[in-house]
Amino acid sequence: MLEVTTYPAEVLGDFSTRLLVSAGVPPDDAAQAAEVLIAADLRGIDSHGVARLRGYFEAVRTGRINATPELRVVRETLTTATVDGDNGLGLVVGPRANELAMDKAVDAGSGWVAVRNTNHFGIAGYYVLEALERDLIGWAMTNSSALVAPVFGTGRMLGTNPLAIAFPGDEEPPIVVDLATSAVAFGKIEIARRLSQPIPEGWAIDASGGPATDPQAVFDGGALLPLGSTRELGGHKGYALAMMVDVLSAALSGANWGPFAPAFAITQTPPGSVGAGIGHFFGALRIDGFIEPDEFKRQVDHLARTFRASPPAPGTNGPLVPGDPERAAEAERRRAGIPLIPAVAADLEALATETGVPLG
Amino acid sequence: MLEVTTYPAEVLGDFSTRLLVSAGVPPDDAAQAAEVLIAADLRGIDSHGVARLRGYFEAVRTGRINATPELRVVRETLTTATVDGDNGLGLVVGPRANELAMDKAVDAGSGWVAVRNTNHFGIAGYYVLEALERDLIGWAMTNSSALVAPVFGTGRMLGTNPLAIAFPGDEEPPIVVDLATSAVAFGKIEIARRLSQPIPEGWAIDASGGPATDPQAVFDGGALLPLGSTRELGGHKGYALAMMVDVLSAALSGANWGPFAPAFAITQTPPGSVGAGIGHFFGALRIDGFIEPDEFKRQVDHLARTFRASPPAPGTNGPLVPGDPERAAEAERRRAGIPLIPAVAADLEALATETGVPLG
Repeated sequence: MLEVTTYPAEVLGDFSTRLLVSAGVPPDDAAQAAEVLIAADLRGIDSHGVARLRGYFEAVRTGRINATPELRVVRETLTTATVDGDNGLGLVVGPRANELAMDKAVDAGSGWVAVRNTNHFGIAGYYVLEALERDLIGWAMTNSSALVAPVFGTGRMLGTNPLAIAFPGDEEPPIVVDLATSAVAFGKIEIARRLSQPIPEGWAIDASGGPATDPQAVFDGGALLPLGSTRELGGHKGYALAMMVDVLSAALSGANWGPFAPAFAITQTPPGSVGAGIGHFFGALRIDGFIEPDEFKRQVDHLARTFRASPPAPGTNGPLVPGDPERAAEAERRRAGIPLIPAVAADLEALATETGVPLG
Repeated sequence: MLEVTTYPAEVLGDFSTRLLVSAGVPPDDAAQAAEVLIAADLRGIDSHGVARLRGYFEAVRTGRINATPELRVVRETLTTATVDGDNGLGLVVGPRANELAMDKAVDAGSGWVAVRNTNHFGIAGYYVLEALERDLIGWAMTNSSALVAPVFGTGRMLGTNPLAIAFPGDEEPPIVVDLATSAVAFGKIEIARRLSQPIPEGWAIDASGGPATDPQAVFDGGALLPLGSTRELGGHKGYALAMMVDVLSAALSGANWGPFAPAFAITQTPPGSVGAGIGHFFGALRIDGFIEPDEFKRQVDHLARTFRASPPAPGTNGPLVPGDPERAAEAERRRAGIPLIPAVAADLEALATETGVPLG
């Protein structure tokens, strides 16, 4: 395995904040963006944390992303809204739009906000954890640049389009559902390529549409498969879920859907445009709009304990509850720091040198 | 393959209505229930149509399901509600609760209704198609009796817990997402057993938690796998989605969740109770709360056409759009009638003989 360097979360958060400020992001917005980024690193979702800091930084520095967006509500009812993110960082636009959904829920029981003209918003889980703080059930989705083939297709037509939702427990930790609608994250293909290891059938296809077991084939014109992998194992369901996220985030907000979603990296260009930026979709439901919150939390506790105590499969420690692995990662990383692989640590050091913003 | 007998949809619908009336269901409710049932047969989801008519009929006849439920809103905000279904037919309680969600959406932009003390509601797709009639984006979910094992587990802990959502097109038909969160429907295991055929790895496990390829092993203490099948292929995501549906439908409403969900068949008994009946969850969003509906429908058209025109996988006719197969089945079956396998046709004829209600 790779050697890692470990940094306290605060050090990486402060560096991210100061780096974004140096590119022109207002301090409060930079701190907000850093909070979302570091949440990914803490929760073990390394692909969405400081590994992407250079991408965000360069996009702002070069003006491809607006450092000082003015968000605009372009349409609104009591419980719905569409927000134009003014091409801001998704890490800044996302939290504000999520806040609007939560405010509406507090006022009227539920709130739903579609966002266009925005950019990658980090981990979907961050947003639904925010909702828990206000005794709300939060929902978050986003589309992203196309990497996933539809069932019966070979083209890269859909992003890994995640969706998240969380439910609070009383004594138990919350149930946190946060999943990409692809069979695996693209990062797993990258890791296999770096280690020169084959990938299992069901993760991806090559350019001809056949099963890819060589990770390089995915880079050479292949595509990820949706959750469920093949038609026989239910790939049409993952495909449908990815399209659901795409329509709610992008078609409903006026953003770019499907293959038109702009890429995270500067160097790639989508094949045209059907809207503005990428799209997000946030929701919030007031728990006490349905049930006494204490009673709900007791049921969630009971449910979590029932599943954890259910019969284990051979060779395992038994079922987990969604959110358990990320919570365990967070506890460990808050204690011991965030481990970065050499490529990411070197990149942060290079950023520090280039900008004069000290790392730690 | 099996020989089939074909009946016009109207004949099966009228028979279902009259049969339920004979068991004490008020005529309007019986007609509503029949409409939901026949929608399943028309859309090719044979497991949820008249194949289940005897189950519903016997449950009402024997008083296990309340023929004349009085629905009660037990908690409410402007845009949320919890409904107690008074142990009525899900086919009757579901449409009324869905109507309440839609009414709230028309008033305030969005509407969300959790339902407890109810029973199986037919296909989730029915409810979201109703929402399209009112220019709403409809959502429908339900939990059901446990058949699915969690990742790392062997117990039957979750239902096949479907979720559905639909988006209208302008010239194109709607995108209709309607999927069980298990890898496959239990009906596919039943068919394989009847035909003495093996099932693919990834559908189910045997009682010891190993992969089941003999369908009989699933009946002998095995379980279905969640969408994504194994941990390696993303089974933890299908598991998380099934739990999401369970919590929204049952924990939020005060119904029985997970292994406590009562079974459809009379002969099986759950291991206890944590609430009332099973649970549903309905939602509705006003499209014009986000975007001009005509513009949204044009985007949906464009999206559907873009996906259908994208590169086909070898040996296929290329990607479909979610809802295409069911729509094709409905067109064919409206024209040529609904084909019933001998066991189902014989069961309907037996019901006609037993009750004196003529079949056609």
